[in-house]
Amino acid sequence: MTDVMDKPALKVVGTRPIRPDGVDKVTGRAAYGADFAMPGMIWGKIKRSPHAHARIVSIDTKKARALPGVKAVVTAADFPDLASQEFEAGESASNLRDMSLNVMARGKALYKGHAVAAVAAASPQIAQAALELIEVTYEVLPHVIDVEAAMAPGAPLLHDHLYTEGLDEHPAAPSNIAKRNRLERGDLAAGFAAAEVIVEGRYVTQAVHQGYIEPHACVCAMSQDGQAQVWSSSQGQFMVRTYSAKILGIDAANIRVTPAEIGGGFGGKTVVYLEPVALALSRQSGLPVKMVMTREEVFEATGPTSGAVVEVKLGAKKDGRIVAAEVELKYQAGAFPGSPVGAGSMTALAVYDIENFRITGWDVVTNTPKVAAYRAPGAPISAFGVESAVDDLALKLGMDPIAIRELNGVRNGVKASYGPTFRDIGFQETLAAAKAHPHWSAPLGPNQGRGVAAGFWFNIGGESTAAVHINEDGGAVVATGNPDIGGSRASMAMMAAEVLGLPVEKVRPIVADTASIGFSMLTGGSRTTFATGMAVTQAAEKIVADLKRRAGLLWDVPVDQIAWEGGAAHCLDPRKDVKPLTLAALAAQSGKTGGPISAEVAINAQGAGPGFGVHICDVEIDRETGHVSVVRYTAVQDVGKAIHPAYVEGQIQGGAVQGIGWALNEEYVFDREGRMENPGFLDYRVPVASDLPMIDAVMVEVPNPRHPFGAKGVGEVPIVPPLAAVANAVRGALGVRMSELPMSPPKVRAVLDSL
Amino acid sequence: MTDVMDKPALKVVGTRPIRPDGVDKVTGRAAYGADFAMPGMIWGKIKRSPHAHARIVSIDTKKARALPGVKAVVTAADFPDLASQEFEAGESASNLRDMSLNVMARGKALYKGHAVAAVAAASPQIAQAALELIEVTYEVLPHVIDVEAAMAPGAPLLHDHLYTEGLDEHPAAPSNIAKRNRLERGDLAAGFAAAEVIVEGRYVTQAVHQGYIEPHACVCAMSQDGQAQVWSSSQGQFMVRTYSAKILGIDAANIRVTPAEIGGGFGGKTVVYLEPVALALSRQSGLPVKMVMTREEVFEATGPTSGAVVEVKLGAKKDGRIVAAEVELKYQAGAFPGSPVGAGSMTALAVYDIENFRITGWDVVTNTPKVAAYRAPGAPISAFGVESAVDDLALKLGMDPIAIRELNGVRNGVKASYGPTFRDIGFQETLAAAKAHPHWSAPLGPNQGRGVAAGFWFNIGGESTAAVHINEDGGAVVATGNPDIGGSRASMAMMAAEVLGLPVEKVRPIVADTASIGFSMLTGGSRTTFATGMAVTQAAEKIVADLKRRAGLLWDVPVDQIAWEGGAAHCLDPRKDVKPLTLAALAAQSGKTGGPISAEVAINAQGAGPGFGVHICDVEIDRETGHVSVVRYTAVQDVGKAIHPAYVEGQIQGGAVQGIGWALNEEYVFDREGRMENPGFLDYRVPVASDLPMIDAVMVEVPNPRHPFGAKGVGEVPIVPPLAAVANAVRGALGVRMSELPMSPPKVRAVLDSL
Repeated sequence: MTDVMDKPALKVVGTRPIRPDGVDKVTGRAAYGADFAMPGMIWGKIKRSPHAHARIVSIDTKKARALPGVKAVVTAADFPDLASQEFEAGESASNLRDMSLNVMARGKALYKGHAVAAVAAASPQIAQAALELIEVTYEVLPHVIDVEAAMAPGAPLLHDHLYTEGLDEHPAAPSNIAKRNRLERGDLAAGFAAAEVIVEGRYVTQAVHQGYIEPHACVCAMSQDGQAQVWSSSQGQFMVRTYSAKILGIDAANIRVTPAEIGGGFGGKTVVYLEPVALALSRQSGLPVKMVMTREEVFEATGPTSGAVVEVKLGAKKDGRIVAAEVELKYQAGAFPGSPVGAGSMTALAVYDIENFRITGWDVVTNTPKVAAYRAPGAPISAFGVESAVDDLALKLGMDPIAIRELNGVRNGVKASYGPTFRDIGFQETLAAAKAHPHWSAPLGPNQGRGVAAGFWFNIGGESTAAVHINEDGGAVVATGNPDIGGSRASMAMMAAEVLGLPVEKVRPIVADTASIGFSMLTGGSRTTFATGMAVTQAAEKIVADLKRRAGLLWDVPVDQIAWEGGAAHCLDPRKDVKPLTLAALAAQSGKTGGPISAEVAINAQGAGPGFGVHICDVEIDRETGHVSVVRYTAVQDVGKAIHPAYVEGQIQGGAVQGIGWALNEEYVFDREGRMENPGFLDYRVPVASDLPMIDAVMVEVPNPRHPFGAKGVGEVPIVPPLAAVANAVRGALGVRMSELPMSPPKVRAVLDSL
Repeated sequence: MTDVMDKPALKVVGTRPIRPDGVDKVTGRAAYGADFAMPGMIWGKIKRSPHAHARIVSIDTKKARALPGVKAVVTAADFPDLASQEFEAGESASNLRDMSLNVMARGKALYKGHAVAAVAAASPQIAQAALELIEVTYEVLPHVIDVEAAMAPGAPLLHDHLYTEGLDEHPAAPSNIAKRNRLERGDLAAGFAAAEVIVEGRYVTQAVHQGYIEPHACVCAMSQDGQAQVWSSSQGQFMVRTYSAKILGIDAANIRVTPAEIGGGFGGKTVVYLEPVALALSRQSGLPVKMVMTREEVFEATGPTSGAVVEVKLGAKKDGRIVAAEVELKYQAGAFPGSPVGAGSMTALAVYDIENFRITGWDVVTNTPKVAAYRAPGAPISAFGVESAVDDLALKLGMDPIAIRELNGVRNGVKASYGPTFRDIGFQETLAAAKAHPHWSAPLGPNQGRGVAAGFWFNIGGESTAAVHINEDGGAVVATGNPDIGGSRASMAMMAAEVLGLPVEKVRPIVADTASIGFSMLTGGSRTTFATGMAVTQAAEKIVADLKRRAGLLWDVPVDQIAWEGGAAHCLDPRKDVKPLTLAALAAQSGKTGGPISAEVAINAQGAGPGFGVHICDVEIDRETGHVSVVRYTAVQDVGKAIHPAYVEGQIQGGAVQGIGWALNEEYVFDREGRMENPGFLDYRVPVASDLPMIDAVMVEVPNPRHPFGAKGVGEVPIVPPLAAVANAVRGALGVRMSELPMSPPKVRAVLDSL
């Protein structure tokens, strides 16, 4: 759609330059959330509920306040009660109220680890001692964690006024079911009646955590005039600003948030936990406050995604054509409504073109930490069910599992199960690449099995601001408002360098603070390379137009007689005997031609291309221990156009690894009191390099015509197929299906014992 | 020139809101150059020449390097020799080469305190010890400090290849005279021939320091891939970036400079001393390096302005009309060419309309620290001479000293002595206000005298970038690239608030780092409120146009049917029944109307209005001690339009105080070896609050039509008149003229003794 795409050869986009943030990260110089310090800084810590569900009868902070070195103590009383406030938009009001209550419990503690008070003191040790001096009287209540138990009549209720939304009738009584959503098309009964083969399955997943290496951390300082500085690790400095301002009831303009380097987020850093508390402690003490979570706090009070139950029924013709599908999804939301069951429903059948279907999703509150987004939120869970069932269907029909997906898979022009019509998608190309990959036809060894599964994610666009500043010596800086989670600094610099015609090392990318760049939605939804990249490209194109205008002024030549190529303006008028004007030469004369060379673009980007992936997994079962090893793994994905292919491969590999961990090892284990028993990386085992083979990432490039270089989001798709791909491989190796995750050694041993 | 000026009432501009940076500054939270720290940081210190002039025979750093804790040692060998490099522009090449040599001596030390090596070590104490282990062998050379001695034939030469520029013929031999400049008009001989009264004087000033409270300080970190961070106190983060990059021979894009709060600059922080050294030490050690000057280093190695000799001859008619003027200016440049004698020459007669004149300026190198800009550089010195002589002329003619200035003073339409034609100036208005002020007619006590003097400064515009970002809740952030020295944060926020129709506290101003905003010339030349303010105003106007467009979209109304008033869009179409859309409402819907609301403007601002001031000073002489007390002081100035009047008054008061110090107390005192004898605030006495009366700042407002709110630069004019105003008052009290500064007690006693 732009000139750039028509050009025969891209010089920067598609290459693999050294990462601009690489050296600082490998040498340990990069500053993460916990690496910042301010003069006079004190330490904040949070007192958390030891109970999964309890009424807070009273909180006595007197002794804690009296401890020498304690500078501030806050409880919910120090925050505005957002339940009593009116907001313009209903949706965000309840989200904000819930987020506020999650940040600091008011009246009730809804899960073990729920914040009930916080202190700030001259040292972390004093703060810890002060926590123990805060006396909280609880009335312990019965709790519920399992999603189906929470839905059952008579279950302990988390909220007195939660009435299920989305039912045909307003319910008579409150329950733990926050919402039912439904997607349907065609005539389901007729579809199943016409089916010649039917498969059914019930699939169970446990809550898993995003597992970012860096715990939540921030330093916050509020001055006596109410102006505040926040330094924190998050997926969005503007998100931190907005939520902190709303939760504290102050103007966004009074908070300046500087994004720290982020040590992983995966969706889990799209909400705030510490910042409003640290700001309240700073406001009370008049001192900067640093807060850093322990790993235990990360597990018990942030993140995870839902544990869920998925029921799938598929009806097909003998030729493999699926004619009816029914999917029911029950997702834990944690303590407040808002599981990713909506996205789970929308993605459940998104890779297939099925005439008759019904998808029903249930959003259910439970006495567990409020779930947070986790990479393609909700999609891996529903894909686990559907892709397992499709595999069973192929087996029943004696079909090749890729062939059945090719037959039923969506193509351009198909109306997606979730509504819009697909355009420029690459699902069939991805299936074809998987089928052609040597992995698919390689022989298997003893105790080995092979599985395949597909996955889908929407990818989004949204609001982004980018600025490109030309330096006096002709280099450039690219500033955006998006934390760099998966290599966006590199891709932004590359896209700008491509347009400007500069070597990429002359273009330095930065992530600007909230005062230094216009609003940008957070880094998530696989939006940054697409949306922010579009803003960067447009800003660079504005610069090029401006440079041509300036060259025209200096040469006295109309702009249409000037071309920009190789980082220089070229005069196309053969009568003018002028040498090309390089960017450096134009920068040196910028004063004469109108001042500094700089451009900013703010957009609401539309047209992010949906992403599809197909993963092939080989496992080997240790029949003695029940341990499942992934011995070969190939992840094929349509990436649109890879801006920096090494980063794209890294995204694909990382997503696959997280999905493998979810499939095989990761789970929240609760004791009878609803306390997590494994809140540490020794007992909550994420796969490490030695657990895995090299993931073979295969990029299929079906360009997205709505992005200047054809990019599609790539970060989320790769976590969608692995749960089912591994499960299908385990089915091949064991000969029976395991439909409950994780397929950890005890469970596999139990299956082996039952054979 | 814009709508805004035509509006009957400004709501924000011209008021005195609380300073946005006030609380942080009075509570000590504001972070100055020395307040920053980085993990792993080490301390850098500079080894300085003990000799005023010496050849560096050798530098042996072995012992220093061997000291445990020493991490890096650099000398000139660690910097590129810029003398051997070619630059595009000749002028800046020699400036950069000289600045590089000033940062680190190469071959010769040219003044006591000249840097010859630097170390970085684990603690300041180790760094200090290491300095003492660096063995430098010097060949001491004869030195010269007095400007006329340096001009004399046979004077010790600082540079072997310095040939005077600007003479009629290229000189045969090198000298210490770097340049002669000349401004002339009319027929000088005829003018003097026609004169009926002639006065002559020879005036001497000593080097004085800018005297900022905050010593130079920085923290610099360069990564192994050559990317660097600089945190430093300066008058321009972009200046620091450019000079550091050039002196180190690296790309500007590789350096990101974050401006610290600045504890005074007054022109003295428009060059770099520490940053390139700290970067070189960081490059060698791989660690962040902090450097902070001692006060002694500040006096001996930075700043001062020239000591000078000024000769003035005026010829006038009996009615007071000045018909001929000859001015000769000899200014110390310090170790490298570049005294402010050019500006001294251009301003010398700028307040007067004289038919025949000749001004000759001499730029002379001396074995003293290279002079740096000091508030209205060069102008106070030449004004001291000219305004003293005008006063003597008035006395000789029996004229009122204000009347003689009204008679000869410039008016609109007059061609200035330095070239352009004056427009929209307020000199006569300022004289009239001085004459009408009760101070002028108040009675004097015994031993008291009253003086008056005028002063002029150009004020400049130049390149500035500004961005205005609207927050999601309808507040705003204003980002500029100019350090806030004299209240620019407040004035930027006020101008943006005025245009946007917001209360000023909803608009938060920030000073952005070099990666987060487009290029901006440094804060100096009284340019910021004018030039950067113009960029801010234009950015805010772009926002308002965009907001009207967005309201039009939402209402389906053409933009010309929408007015922006009181922070809201109003629909002018009476058929539409719609309520005004506030900025908050438009911000909440920005996604629908095109994305984030943000605007950036980069300009090269032209049309800064020249500034004029008239000061009245009363002194009282203590005939016993020779101490001169300023007992009353009134400073009248045309400020165009005061954006934040309290800050403008502060500028006027501060400038007057610095001029009073220069007149009465401040001076560099050298011993026979050319070493400064008083490098500390106990022996180099700047006036403190208890030394002075409240300075009465009187603002005259003759708007500058080329600024959206009428502003003219205000920061420099007020230091121009005081030297002469005080000297004229002392003349009144003593009955004889003192023509050598400072008029300190020993000199006044000597005059008293001679009477």
